[in-house]
Amino acid sequence: MPYFDAASSAPLHPVARQALQASLDEGWADPARLYREGRRARLLLDAAREAAAEAVGCRPDELSFTSSGTRAVHSGIYGSLSGRRRVGRHLVVSAVEHSSVLHSAASHEAGGGSLTEVVVDRTGRVSPDVYAAALRPDTALACLQSANHEVGTFQPVAEVAEACRAAGVPLLVDAAQSLAWGPVEGAWSILAASAHKWGGPAGVGLLAVRKGVRFAPQGPADERESGRAAGFENIPAIVAAAASLRAVRAEAEAESARLRDLVERIRTRVAELVPDVEVVGDPVRRLPHLVTFSCLYVDGETLLHELDRAEFSVSSGSSCTSSTLTPSHVLRAMGVLSEGNVRVSLPLGTPAQDVDRFLDVLPGVVASVRTKLGAPVATAGPADAEEFVVDSLGRLCPIPVIELAKAIGNVPVGGVVTVLADDEAARLDIPAWCEMRGQEYLGEHPAEDGTAYRVRRVS
Amino acid sequence: MPYFDAASSAPLHPVARQALQASLDEGWADPARLYREGRRARLLLDAAREAAAEAVGCRPDELSFTSSGTRAVHSGIYGSLSGRRRVGRHLVVSAVEHSSVLHSAASHEAGGGSLTEVVVDRTGRVSPDVYAAALRPDTALACLQSANHEVGTFQPVAEVAEACRAAGVPLLVDAAQSLAWGPVEGAWSILAASAHKWGGPAGVGLLAVRKGVRFAPQGPADERESGRAAGFENIPAIVAAAASLRAVRAEAEAESARLRDLVERIRTRVAELVPDVEVVGDPVRRLPHLVTFSCLYVDGETLLHELDRAEFSVSSGSSCTSSTLTPSHVLRAMGVLSEGNVRVSLPLGTPAQDVDRFLDVLPGVVASVRTKLGAPVATAGPADAEEFVVDSLGRLCPIPVIELAKAIGNVPVGGVVTVLADDEAARLDIPAWCEMRGQEYLGEHPAEDGTAYRVRRVS
Repeated sequence: MPYFDAASSAPLHPVARQALQASLDEGWADPARLYREGRRARLLLDAAREAAAEAVGCRPDELSFTSSGTRAVHSGIYGSLSGRRRVGRHLVVSAVEHSSVLHSAASHEAGGGSLTEVVVDRTGRVSPDVYAAALRPDTALACLQSANHEVGTFQPVAEVAEACRAAGVPLLVDAAQSLAWGPVEGAWSILAASAHKWGGPAGVGLLAVRKGVRFAPQGPADERESGRAAGFENIPAIVAAAASLRAVRAEAEAESARLRDLVERIRTRVAELVPDVEVVGDPVRRLPHLVTFSCLYVDGETLLHELDRAEFSVSSGSSCTSSTLTPSHVLRAMGVLSEGNVRVSLPLGTPAQDVDRFLDVLPGVVASVRTKLGAPVATAGPADAEEFVVDSLGRLCPIPVIELAKAIGNVPVGGVVTVLADDEAARLDIPAWCEMRGQEYLGEHPAEDGTAYRVRRVS
Repeated sequence: MPYFDAASSAPLHPVARQALQASLDEGWADPARLYREGRRARLLLDAAREAAAEAVGCRPDELSFTSSGTRAVHSGIYGSLSGRRRVGRHLVVSAVEHSSVLHSAASHEAGGGSLTEVVVDRTGRVSPDVYAAALRPDTALACLQSANHEVGTFQPVAEVAEACRAAGVPLLVDAAQSLAWGPVEGAWSILAASAHKWGGPAGVGLLAVRKGVRFAPQGPADERESGRAAGFENIPAIVAAAASLRAVRAEAEAESARLRDLVERIRTRVAELVPDVEVVGDPVRRLPHLVTFSCLYVDGETLLHELDRAEFSVSSGSSCTSSTLTPSHVLRAMGVLSEGNVRVSLPLGTPAQDVDRFLDVLPGVVASVRTKLGAPVATAGPADAEEFVVDSLGRLCPIPVIELAKAIGNVPVGGVVTVLADDEAARLDIPAWCEMRGQEYLGEHPAEDGTAYRVRRVS
């Protein structure tokens, strides 16, 4: 039963399990106590900190263990914003950061701070120049992920770190998706990561703050973990997190090459096997184990459900799978198709035959979902009216795009189809459909109860 | 090797270990995902929530799992202060709360809120009337522990909850020390607890918020755990926490009676076996497994070190053992002796012979520490001067009290000894010594480089 959603959470690594079990007997006491049980716990904690710091590429006294990657991000952002409050209250983030970063940014803005979101290109990557241009004299902090969690694209962290260094702005790197594969390059100031992404247990995040970075921990005082992570230390889990990070690093080079080939196989074969599909993210500068593609005329929820029935566990950034009815902010920022979106992220050790079986199953699954939804199989015959209006008000993704694809045959080349829709995903998916099908997107304007999207038939 | 510091952290309960190991294979995936691994994780989480809610005495949808008891307290206090901000910004706490509550209160005060600390009597207990009198029309929240973590005294939670209900103020109960023994009585609004105190794993706290209580989670948005605990859920640890809470509850009645007898033995025998000792905390309305006493003329750090050498792990609220050089705020609020302070808290299953061996060893250990420090063995002979000044400036606890005890023999009955000291513990321990030795404490006044404490010899 192949699990292809390692980017959400990886199964526990055997080394993590072993280390966890071994330290349950020694790691339960309070490491601040001076008696033998406390001293033993302290020894375990110190050793784990040294091992994790080595993997991160920082000094042990720069590294705190938090209760999750999310907490590491929250503490890292608030601590450095507060520490540099005299400089200003401007925060820079990329538009494709993890929600823990974007929610911290929203909370900062709600509290009166200012925010710049740096745009990305169609591969999901920021431009170092554009990023550098967002830095201001009152910028207190800049944030950039090492690699995107939805599409796998590597960010130019070293170049952005250099621009930040030149501007005197600390850079916080969310390394949650990449730390398993190697340390983050460049002169970052603050780094956050999450153990369950590399096969460590849940309940452990890493927060590294370089010496010399102004940092003022927020919230009620708590002397543990340099004041950066309140609450009793979860030592067995910390030991397991550090041990498994070393273990995955030891296999990183070989496994990275192997998974990179498997992902390359998916990238190539999906485009060949599934009609009307868009494979997104940078094809080269990317995480080795992750690939994302979107299928026209398919709703994500049904697709995931059918893949689950076929025993493949994947995730999706389609609006149809979330309760918010909005597509993934990452796909939106990239301006790519969001309907029928599938993210495949392979855990360590994924056998090649699982990937092959996925490629065997996928085309049929997509075709059957399309058939159920009445997706167009070919454009219609010669048409008469120069203008055609499709009313998709009240219909959810992918229906507006399916209706558009059917209607395009109703106008001659040069004619215009207007789609009335109120589903948020249409804003992203109609332009994306035009780009994929070589039709001309004319733009949108408000209409009664929704939005009118206009498309000129070009071919 | 007896471990007598369960109130800091209890060894992992066998049921917790079993549940943790069993759920490592099923509980690592994201419970928000719809594929089978996510559904399995969700089932585990839901079942754990039901079990824990039943033990707490609340509805499952009122209970969130946090990453620690400290985090539960922080979120509980901030969430309800924010939810009731329109009512006012006044917070009431008892003077003997856990540091997580007092640090939250200090942070609230630093942010412009107002704070009332309710005093306690010499047993460490608040009076319900005094507590009720602290409630004001602008009181947003009241906090009271169920039982004190340093001296074991039960607080009158049900009476205080009733006063809060009458005043329309929500009551947050820190139940960290008592939840293993039974649910908290009375109409509390919010409850916080910590799994590693009952033998569950570290990394799990409980936060219960009754329906109808105004609550506005603080910090960046995070949809997990009703928005009250950011970060990926630590499901194996949560399962282990819930399972072990049920397990300790099943043994609570029998074990509580057994440990209560053992603690009673310590309370009685320590007072008989060790001269110049004060056993503190309520002798009856108390946690079954915890007892605290303080020994005159002894410094806590040496005492703990010697007990550790004798293979007993205990903790202390003496100033001499902490880096802050101030005695425990609990002992200070109670106005009892802090020097040579020892807290014994027995884990479940502590054998009677371990307690007997502790009672065999303790008198010799205390005597040897006293001998090393040159503590007085008897008051001196007839004296001449009506006034005698002891200069203990620059000397740490317990030296000022030892010098006082030696000097009291240098004045006749009716004469006065003045102790000059700059150690913070003297403020607590000199009055406590007077009370224990039947001498009259006349008060303190500032002196060059420190404080002058005046004592009249009465007997």
